[in-house]
Amino acid sequence: MIAIDWGGSSLRAYRLDSEGGVLERRRGNEGALACNGRFGRVLGALIGDWDDPLVVMAGMVGARGGWIEVPYVQCPADLGALAAGMLRLDASRESPALAKRTLWCVPGMADRSMPAGDVMRGEETQIAGLVDLLGKGAHTLCLPGTHSKWVQVRDGAIAHLSTAMTGELYALLRSHSILGRGMPEGEPAFDTGAFDAGLACSRDPGGGLLHDLFGVRTALLFGRFQPQALASYLSGMLVGHELQAALAGFAGPVHLVGSETLVERYAHALQERGVGVHRHPEELAATGMFRLARARGLA
Amino acid sequence: MIAIDWGGSSLRAYRLDSEGGVLERRRGNEGALACNGRFGRVLGALIGDWDDPLVVMAGMVGARGGWIEVPYVQCPADLGALAAGMLRLDASRESPALAKRTLWCVPGMADRSMPAGDVMRGEETQIAGLVDLLGKGAHTLCLPGTHSKWVQVRDGAIAHLSTAMTGELYALLRSHSILGRGMPEGEPAFDTGAFDAGLACSRDPGGGLLHDLFGVRTALLFGRFQPQALASYLSGMLVGHELQAALAGFAGPVHLVGSETLVERYAHALQERGVGVHRHPEELAATGMFRLARARGLA
Repeated sequence: MIAIDWGGSSLRAYRLDSEGGVLERRRGNEGALACNGRFGRVLGALIGDWDDPLVVMAGMVGARGGWIEVPYVQCPADLGALAAGMLRLDASRESPALAKRTLWCVPGMADRSMPAGDVMRGEETQIAGLVDLLGKGAHTLCLPGTHSKWVQVRDGAIAHLSTAMTGELYALLRSHSILGRGMPEGEPAFDTGAFDAGLACSRDPGGGLLHDLFGVRTALLFGRFQPQALASYLSGMLVGHELQAALAGFAGPVHLVGSETLVERYAHALQERGVGVHRHPEELAATGMFRLARARGLA
Repeated sequence: MIAIDWGGSSLRAYRLDSEGGVLERRRGNEGALACNGRFGRVLGALIGDWDDPLVVMAGMVGARGGWIEVPYVQCPADLGALAAGMLRLDASRESPALAKRTLWCVPGMADRSMPAGDVMRGEETQIAGLVDLLGKGAHTLCLPGTHSKWVQVRDGAIAHLSTAMTGELYALLRSHSILGRGMPEGEPAFDTGAFDAGLACSRDPGGGLLHDLFGVRTALLFGRFQPQALASYLSGMLVGHELQAALAGFAGPVHLVGSETLVERYAHALQERGVGVHRHPEELAATGMFRLARARGLA
């Protein structure tokens, strides 16, 4: 089968063997938010020369405004419940390269246990690739990113999820706030000392994030850090506040899933707090789609 | 004398009588960040037909990158200490309308009692207009805005200050984040129910601001509020988190200084928490400049 991890700003294709092993991988240029409805043509061009008849997709491609809106499956849900929420779509008219193929899309997940509720789309598929490895019992997962997801897995089911807008706020504050004005253009080298100072700041009682953020401004005014260290200070402050809330009353360990850079940064922050860490690669999505296809009886 | 309240994006002139009462008021169009160094010409054009020889200015006009950089005075400082930090500038060459006048600029204040430190510029002058009214003892002031200031006044001295980036974050999230995408253009009517739901959300233990913010997104996805109520929900969440941190272990009352709209919003949020409120008008800056001029022996 072919597994398609199609996020808002990324597109990755995996050709899998009959046991879910990755035979080949490719990247496309057009994320689900950027391809302006030309989903069939973009996908056809990317995988046209692979002859596998089954295609499973996950991520923002299945969101409202994506190719097909696949309704959220509610927490708690195991692989069977998640697979039961998959929807099939017919794309034979959109691209000749997709004719004679069967396309499926994985649902996102919603947690309505809190008044505000919470959602994810894409991360549930990465987690589906990990649950067998986790086994029985309760496990805490963190998938850091633009919208970091904290997920509780219990006995193979996704039980609870919580989002933190850490990555989006970091980007916003750098690009558009008074805090970014003192920072050099471009992503500067990571500064461990400044990152750690940001982490420490987030553990000070009483200040709160809205106050602590202004400390990036005063750090510049008072020359506490070099301008090129300010982004790391801001990053440590935001990651620290994310952890402060997510770890309340919780001793770990945490399973980290994501890009190597982000996983390293979060692992460091967690270890600073004495919390144990397991690292997992981002590419779990392909395994997750294979597991879901099998749970649905397709692979 | 003439009092000039010259902030980053606003310019207000007050003509005062010999006891500090306001005889006349005017607004200019060019804030200190917008006037590109033409400070003398802008001021000369605004007050040229007022013949008072003494001009006292406060706000971002005295910041680095303003007309004259007036160094921060350290906390704690009473009116005398603040007045001693005022700097005189000679603008006779910049505008004929300013020749034969004496111009002074009020300093900002810095608090170095915490590792990150904190600063304000402009608010110290509003507070200088209020301290006589407050009298002896300890008082807590809140000046809500782009950067809200929480200030402790003890026996007539400004003892401690703390900034919260509430207003800037509200504007950023509305204009540039995923949360703003679901909101109608322009500032919608205030929705008390949604604002109160945001306040309540900020008092829930465990979530943290980075998590709670994503609730504005899910509120749209789940149809919890009408799109035109989302900005009020976001506002309540941010103000609530500001108060949650600022009021830790504190029972009130709070002296609120600011625009009527913001003061009403904060008063409502404080009263929801059972905290008493005193309201003061924004125009305190003119009184503050008069008091400081008198403390310096100028008026």
